[in-house]
Amino acid sequence: MPQGLLMVLSGPSGCGKGTVCDLLRQRNPNLTYSISATTRKPRPGEQDGVNYRFFTREQFKRQIKEDGFLEWAEVYGNLYGTPRTWVEEKLAAGKNVLLEIDTQGAMQVKASYPAGILLFLLPPNMEELRRRIDGRGTEGAEEKERRLQAARQEIAQIRNYDYLVVNDEVQQAVLRIEAILLAEQGRISRYSEQELKVLLGG
Amino acid sequence: MPQGLLMVLSGPSGCGKGTVCDLLRQRNPNLTYSISATTRKPRPGEQDGVNYRFFTREQFKRQIKEDGFLEWAEVYGNLYGTPRTWVEEKLAAGKNVLLEIDTQGAMQVKASYPAGILLFLLPPNMEELRRRIDGRGTEGAEEKERRLQAARQEIAQIRNYDYLVVNDEVQQAVLRIEAILLAEQGRISRYSEQELKVLLGG
Repeated sequence: MPQGLLMVLSGPSGCGKGTVCDLLRQRNPNLTYSISATTRKPRPGEQDGVNYRFFTREQFKRQIKEDGFLEWAEVYGNLYGTPRTWVEEKLAAGKNVLLEIDTQGAMQVKASYPAGILLFLLPPNMEELRRRIDGRGTEGAEEKERRLQAARQEIAQIRNYDYLVVNDEVQQAVLRIEAILLAEQGRISRYSEQELKVLLGG
Repeated sequence: MPQGLLMVLSGPSGCGKGTVCDLLRQRNPNLTYSISATTRKPRPGEQDGVNYRFFTREQFKRQIKEDGFLEWAEVYGNLYGTPRTWVEEKLAAGKNVLLEIDTQGAMQVKASYPAGILLFLLPPNMEELRRRIDGRGTEGAEEKERRLQAARQEIAQIRNYDYLVVNDEVQQAVLRIEAILLAEQGRISRYSEQELKVLLGG
């Protein structure tokens, strides 16, 4: 059985990543999502093992030492990471795994797993991005400015990605991501000599 | 406007390339097909400028000297080639161009136009390929054996391609090719700095 594909999706705050991922999930029940580990406090309604795996800082640091994360990063003073064993087991079982992580994490994944496919989701334009960030009622002006600045820094990393997906319309963005997944499954570089032999009937 | 994509489709005799290309053409009126030049004699019903551009050997040789072909090859004693200027004009106008050519030609295209995407269409298995070649009523046993041998030689080139597409079912094969086209349009390496700047709103 061929190895599954590891797909990384990044994109700045306000690019609509959450909505795109929700629709991807609905339409592709076989696409596996990794649940990140984090040291940040649960927000109201968030459940351990569903939204995140909530770790104490001490637990998290121990996992880092044991090379237990495929990638990890400190964002706004909190630690976030992707459990390595879990992802590797899914891929070995032929499942595709989607990681929704920031550019720092994406670069670590590319370094430790070069076959990973890096997608960058973009808002249709910067004015729209500012509008979306401004529209978030729960945050103060300073926090919004910080997010916009962070978004610009994320976008500056785009050349390190494999694909860009413009989120002008959620349905279209999801179709583009599905096309990338389907296309990448046919890349000849992903086939071992043995797999090609089987495919060609020996 | 971004440059169009040049997509090359190869595959052995009997892999179902003709049927796949017909359906691709029907479903994608904007996908442009190159009409090959050839020195072979027209078969009944074939029209100059529709199926092929029929050249005399002398005309063809002159075009080779003038670097007028993106690729050309001698197959079964006849010359076949893809007119360079025509393809380059379409790509510059932002149109995607599909070339249906053999492995010799595909390697020349890759050398002269590295951004080209090389697809290899495979029959579901070698028994099926033999059955399909055997099923062609118009050819003698020797010709069939020659085609099967040529098919094996073509398949041996598969590692030089970017994607493989298994033609187990025509509709599925066409969907996979369309996905590759859509995915490749989002490859970040295809965007110039200027294009990225425009996309990101300056």
